Amino acid sequence: MRGHPWNSLHAGDRAAPASEEDCLALINALFPERSEHFRLERDDDCAALSLSSGSLALSTDYFLEDVHFRAAYFTPAEAGAKALSAAVSDLAAVGAVPLGFSLGLLLPEGLSRAALADCLAGMAAKARACAIVLTGGDLSRGPCLGFCLTVWGAPVAEGAPFPARGRARPGDCLFLIGEAGLARVGLEALEALGREALSRYPASCAAHLDPPVLLAEGQALARLARREPALSLMDCSDGPARDLPRLLAGSGADLRIDPGLIPEEVRREAGRQGIAPEDIFLAGGEDYALIGSCPESCWPLAREAVPAARLLGRVREDSLFFCNGAPLSLAALSGFDHFAAPAGKN
Amino acid sequence: MRGHPWNSLHAGDRAAPASEEDCLALINALFPERSEHFRLERDDDCAALSLSSGSLALSTDYFLEDVHFRAAYFTPAEAGAKALSAAVSDLAAVGAVPLGFSLGLLLPEGLSRAALADCLAGMAAKARACAIVLTGGDLSRGPCLGFCLTVWGAPVAEGAPFPARGRARPGDCLFLIGEAGLARVGLEALEALGREALSRYPASCAAHLDPPVLLAEGQALARLARREPALSLMDCSDGPARDLPRLLAGSGADLRIDPGLIPEEVRREAGRQGIAPEDIFLAGGEDYALIGSCPESCWPLAREAVPAARLLGRVREDSLFFCNGAPLSLAALSGFDHFAAPAGKN
Repeated sequence: MRGHPWNSLHAGDRAAPASEEDCLALINALFPERSEHFRLERDDDCAALSLSSGSLALSTDYFLEDVHFRAAYFTPAEAGAKALSAAVSDLAAVGAVPLGFSLGLLLPEGLSRAALADCLAGMAAKARACAIVLTGGDLSRGPCLGFCLTVWGAPVAEGAPFPARGRARPGDCLFLIGEAGLARVGLEALEALGREALSRYPASCAAHLDPPVLLAEGQALARLARREPALSLMDCSDGPARDLPRLLAGSGADLRIDPGLIPEEVRREAGRQGIAPEDIFLAGGEDYALIGSCPESCWPLAREAVPAARLLGRVREDSLFFCNGAPLSLAALSGFDHFAAPAGKN
Repeated sequence: MRGHPWNSLHAGDRAAPASEEDCLALINALFPERSEHFRLERDDDCAALSLSSGSLALSTDYFLEDVHFRAAYFTPAEAGAKALSAAVSDLAAVGAVPLGFSLGLLLPEGLSRAALADCLAGMAAKARACAIVLTGGDLSRGPCLGFCLTVWGAPVAEGAPFPARGRARPGDCLFLIGEAGLARVGLEALEALGREALSRYPASCAAHLDPPVLLAEGQALARLARREPALSLMDCSDGPARDLPRLLAGSGADLRIDPGLIPEEVRREAGRQGIAPEDIFLAGGEDYALIGSCPESCWPLAREAVPAARLLGRVREDSLFFCNGAPLSLAALSGFDHFAAPAGKN
C-alpha cells in the first residue's frame, strides 16, 4: 500500500491511518455547533431537521464501484437502482415519506453513454417506485463510477416524530423487519461465482442486487410512534452485530434466533461452510432490514401495524448479549466496516 | 485509456463515452417528475424547494483530489475549507442564508489521521465563518480523498424569492461581483511551480486556494430582488465565457471589459503569454464570483446594496456577444468542463 501524498506533511512512523471511529470522533469534535434554525440529532444515519416550519429527515450515502458494488456482476440498471435504494432505506428507518434527492454522480473515463443511460434508467425506475423526486446535484469526472446521494423526506403526519435509536428500555421487545444474512450470502456467492450465483442462491443474490426498501413498514411504525414515543427504529444495513449495539446504546439483549428467522439459503450456506447459521444472520450486512424495539405492551400493535415484524428477543438491563441462552460476543462477529473490509467486501 | 468494464456490456465501436451534456440530457429525460410537495427549478446549480411551509435552497458539489484540487500544493486545511466554500458559493448565488450541510467523505487508504484532522479543521473553520452547521453525512473508503457536500439555506426573509438565471431582458445591465480570471492564473501557476507560485502570484494563488464566499453580497441582492423580480444572479464558477450564456438563456451581450476590471496579475500573466487579458478574464473559472443582471433603473440600487458590483455590459436583443465593440465567440474561449479538462485542470 502506497502512502497518501499528504502523509509526507505529517511524516513519521506514528502517522497512523484514520479509522472510521477516528473520523467520526474528529468530526464530532470539530463541528460541535448547534443551530438556532433547527434541532438535529447527528448520531443517526439520518439528520432530522426541525425547521421553524415543519421538519425534514435528510441522509447522505455513497455507492461506489469496487467499494459498494462490482461492475462485474451488477448490471448498470441494478447499480443505479441500488444506489437509490440504499439511500432511501435511511428514510424508511425513520419512517419518513421520501420527498427529494440530490445526485452527486462520479463518472470515470471510458464509461459508455449506453451504460450510463441504463444506470440512470434503473435509478429513475426506483425513484418512481419510492415516489422521490430528483432535485439536482453535481457531475464530476472521477476515478471510478460512483454516486453520492442526499435524500430527504417528511414525517408521516404534521408534527409526528421520527423514530430513532436509543429509546429502548430493559424488557422491551426487539424486532426485525426483513431478512438478515441473506445479502451477505449473496455478496459472497456473487464474488465467487459472478452472475452464475443467481441460479444457486436466487434469494441471496436478489437481496444483494436489489434490496427491498421498507418504506411502508417504517411509516407504519412512525404512525405508531406518535402514540408510543418509546418505540425505536433503525436501518440494519451493517448487520445486527453492528447495529444492535447502536440501537440499544449501552443495553444488552437476550436474543432468540429461531431457525425459522434464518433464511433457508443462509442455513444452507452455513451448513456448507460448517459454521453456525446464527453467525451469518448476525454478522451479515446490506440487507437494509429494519430493527427496532418497543415496550411489551406495544408489541401487539407493532405486529398489527407491520405483520412482517418478527420478535428477535428482549432488551436486558445490563450490557451483555445472549443468543438462545448462550453468551455472545457481537464484537467477535465481523460486521461491515468500509474501512476494514477488502475492496468489494462491504 | 482503458475502457470501463461496463463497456463490454455495450460493446462495439459506437459505444461513445458520455459527455457532461449527455449526462444532463439523460438525467432530464429519465427524471421528468414534478413533486406535489415542492416546486423546484432543476436547471440551476441550486435546487429551490418551496415546501408547503417555507422554502429551502439546496445544492450538491463534489471536491475531489486530482479533479478539483491537488494534494501537492493544497494544505489539508485549505482543501477542507475550499470544499465547503465551493459548495456554499451556490447558496451565495441565490442569496440564501446557509443553514446546514451534509458531508460525504471519501477516504483513500493511507491518508494519515493528522492530515484528515487538518482537513476537517479547515472545513470547520470555514463552516463557522459561513454560519453553517454540519448535520451528518457518510464516510466511505474510496480511490482518492474526496468530498461530496450537500448544503442548504433559507431565503433572506420569509417568502422572499431566490434570485435565479434567465430573467434578463434586452438593455439590462450585466454586473460582476468579485474577480474573474484570477483563480485560473493561480491554478496554472500552482500547477507549474507548486507553492513557489504564492510569492509570484499571491492574489491569484489565494483566489484558487481560498476563494471568497460572497454570502453578504448575494443576500443583499436577494433583498433587492423582492422589489425587482427581474434581477437575476448566478455563481460564475465556470468562468464568464461559460456562465454568461447560462445566465442570459439565449440573449447575447455587449460586454465592456475595461482594463480596470481585470486583476493586475491577470494582465501581467496575459502579457507574459502574449494573449489578450480579456481572454483569461472571460475563460477563467473557479473564482466563485457572482454575475447578474438587472434593469437599468435598478442598477443604482444594486450598486448601493453591493458597492463591489461592477458593470460588465448590457444584454442584447439578439444572441450575439461583443467585447469592447468587437464580435466575440464565447464558445472559442475554453471554459471549465470537468469532463474535457485533463486531471487537475479544472
